[in-house]
Amino acid sequence: MPLTNLNTNMVYETRILGYSYDEYIKIVRQFHGYEAPGVIIGGFMVDAAIRNLPEGILYDAISETRSCLPDAIQVLTPCTIGNGWLKIIHNGRFALTLYDKESYEGVRVFLDAEKVEAWQAIKAWYFKLKTKKKQDREEIAREIKEAGDSILSVQYVRIHPQLAEKKHKGNIAVCPLCLEAYPVDDGKTCLACQGNTLYE
Amino acid sequence: MPLTNLNTNMVYETRILGYSYDEYIKIVRQFHGYEAPGVIIGGFMVDAAIRNLPEGILYDAISETRSCLPDAIQVLTPCTIGNGWLKIIHNGRFALTLYDKESYEGVRVFLDAEKVEAWQAIKAWYFKLKTKKKQDREEIAREIKEAGDSILSVQYVRIHPQLAEKKHKGNIAVCPLCLEAYPVDDGKTCLACQGNTLYE
Repeated sequence: MPLTNLNTNMVYETRILGYSYDEYIKIVRQFHGYEAPGVIIGGFMVDAAIRNLPEGILYDAISETRSCLPDAIQVLTPCTIGNGWLKIIHNGRFALTLYDKESYEGVRVFLDAEKVEAWQAIKAWYFKLKTKKKQDREEIAREIKEAGDSILSVQYVRIHPQLAEKKHKGNIAVCPLCLEAYPVDDGKTCLACQGNTLYE
Repeated sequence: MPLTNLNTNMVYETRILGYSYDEYIKIVRQFHGYEAPGVIIGGFMVDAAIRNLPEGILYDAISETRSCLPDAIQVLTPCTIGNGWLKIIHNGRFALTLYDKESYEGVRVFLDAEKVEAWQAIKAWYFKLKTKKKQDREEIAREIKEAGDSILSVQYVRIHPQLAEKKHKGNIAVCPLCLEAYPVDDGKTCLACQGNTLYE
């Protein structure tokens, strides 16, 4: 399915999808616990991705980092970790992709290191130039709101089919050691009983 | 910190933490997209874990599966994937642990295969004895509500310190190949440029 023209124009009233900026901040505070810069920037990233996707498609999401960004995706789109429409494929970059479930074509949005140069507080946060304590959270928030999507870049991408395809769990059986249910494809016992233990 | 007595008593009015059963279903539908059995059972699991934790502690969460359960944790506790207080350590078992951030002691709750034997529709769903299409979703939901926490078991555990400890990202630099920011601990280039690519 062909994508529409890329659109990174700054909107004049700061909005994140259907929400005012302040409404979005409230959602972030409630879900994420506090107004983390990464989740606020993530809101602009999801907004930019959706504006550049064709309307009315069903899409899945990938976050390239475990930090913050998955929460922006989870509060703004139907994609969550638990329903499988959001995957985290951690490679340490602050980027997300929303892509068509059928064609695997979509839009990748990333926080552009070059564009961040113009914003001292965002830069200090992004590159960890100051310790958390020394960062001025209010100044970061002010810059993020003012910068909006001007610090982002978007790319057309097509996700590798082997990453996009649904994995099925196969049959379920009772593990002969711990007596809990597990996917038989994992082996003769569950992965925990194979040594992947979490607790003492 | 010592834990209080285990408490798996059935409550008489079906409640999931502060919510009525119907309120919880509504939250699940909104966040997860539909009333997945795993998220509804997950609600009872989070409820059981919290009832068996000492009051007033700060806790982190682990889900042993990527399916459904993380969403119950995310809507009912402060722990999310993006804020790092929820970790998914996938070993295919339908179990969660909430544990004290300081002592790593906590409560593991799992869907008990033996106890599920008494519930035909839940059993058929859990062990995938019927295809999704042939499962009677209303009957599964009816059984889950009636079974409540009687199909769960709880254990005291202490999470391995190396799993519980916070990992810090270290310094951030610009990748010389893709020009995006990445944690320098990953190597001379970011992991994506080392071959962990997502798209064509």
